[in-house]
Amino acid sequence: MSLIEDLKWRHAVKAYDPNKKVSQEDIDKIVEAARLAPTSSGLQPFKVIVVEDQDVKNKLVKGALNPECMRDASHIIIFAAWDRYTADRIDHVYNFTTDERGLPRGRFDSYTDMLKNVYLNEPAERNFAHTARQTYIALGMALAQAAELRVDTTPAEGFNNAIIDEVLELEKQGLKSVSLMYVGYADVEKDWLSTMKKVRVPKDDFVLTY
Amino acid sequence: MSLIEDLKWRHAVKAYDPNKKVSQEDIDKIVEAARLAPTSSGLQPFKVIVVEDQDVKNKLVKGALNPECMRDASHIIIFAAWDRYTADRIDHVYNFTTDERGLPRGRFDSYTDMLKNVYLNEPAERNFAHTARQTYIALGMALAQAAELRVDTTPAEGFNNAIIDEVLELEKQGLKSVSLMYVGYADVEKDWLSTMKKVRVPKDDFVLTY
Repeated sequence: MSLIEDLKWRHAVKAYDPNKKVSQEDIDKIVEAARLAPTSSGLQPFKVIVVEDQDVKNKLVKGALNPECMRDASHIIIFAAWDRYTADRIDHVYNFTTDERGLPRGRFDSYTDMLKNVYLNEPAERNFAHTARQTYIALGMALAQAAELRVDTTPAEGFNNAIIDEVLELEKQGLKSVSLMYVGYADVEKDWLSTMKKVRVPKDDFVLTY
Repeated sequence: MSLIEDLKWRHAVKAYDPNKKVSQEDIDKIVEAARLAPTSSGLQPFKVIVVEDQDVKNKLVKGALNPECMRDASHIIIFAAWDRYTADRIDHVYNFTTDERGLPRGRFDSYTDMLKNVYLNEPAERNFAHTARQTYIALGMALAQAAELRVDTTPAEGFNNAIIDEVLELEKQGLKSVSLMYVGYADVEKDWLSTMKKVRVPKDDFVLTY
């Protein structure tokens, strides 16, 4: 198997079989791929929230544009980014990194000072624009990992963020929802996209070379 | 091999060997993974620009925060997003998709009308915030594909966009640079990160479960 074969296999599933559950082992691998994703300066400025509990899913339904997927998918994985950078958050990551590498804390001070000088002088919404972008790399890795496992997914940005943030109490954790993915096994009868050809922009329109 | 092994293998390389070139076959696979990446509503609102020509790289150097990587890497892949959504751009994608699927043009009019109603009533910078996010999914796929091939990469957001956009004449194509990746083979002597442990936020700090 290869990533390209996996990406050709996957599509954004439109209906899930509520009776088919994804194994915890597979969920763990999907989360692990997201955790290993690279991010700007290695800050990993987000968390992933894995929802399996049906009561929580039912509360999230009112924030979903595709409520049937929210209700029927085995798991929902929500990507929630830091609402802003802070000195504490940056130091926490770099202290952990130096500890893990057996280096003295402060080894990267000149770099983290530069980061703080940039980020802490920006408005919170500009920080969030940056943290939110990082989540998409991890979303991509999670989608690719699910495809490798032949687990179905649907990435979604279209939802009511305020409702999702409230149900998951994200604000008090300094987080804001960015995207989510439904994870499960398709209901092939109802998934109208499953029989349609996968279409992408032709290579000649996609790539410029110098 | 698995995606998780590939992600554990990779790191952001800090120095490239200028004498080692990545094969065209590998570059094609890296671009193909980016092309197959999912995007919001399937619009793929960006292009990738592959630079191998040394003269072009030398012009891009003055926009780079890591000029030695820009100069020495085998290839540079730049992700450049649509500066805004337009009715023509949306129709172009959906006409191609319906043609490829053997469906009548206009089959998805109610959906594209909804997209136009949202996007064309937003300021261009808000459109661009959305198109730029999509490029990160493709960046992730390209980094993962390179890792599968054991080709080294460095993702980079920190660069002077105005210089990159000018050298590549992006504005007149309705594009703006978002991120780039250096692609090549590390100069292991100079790549100080290659001997350091890969560190990520521990799983317990990364995941919330319900």
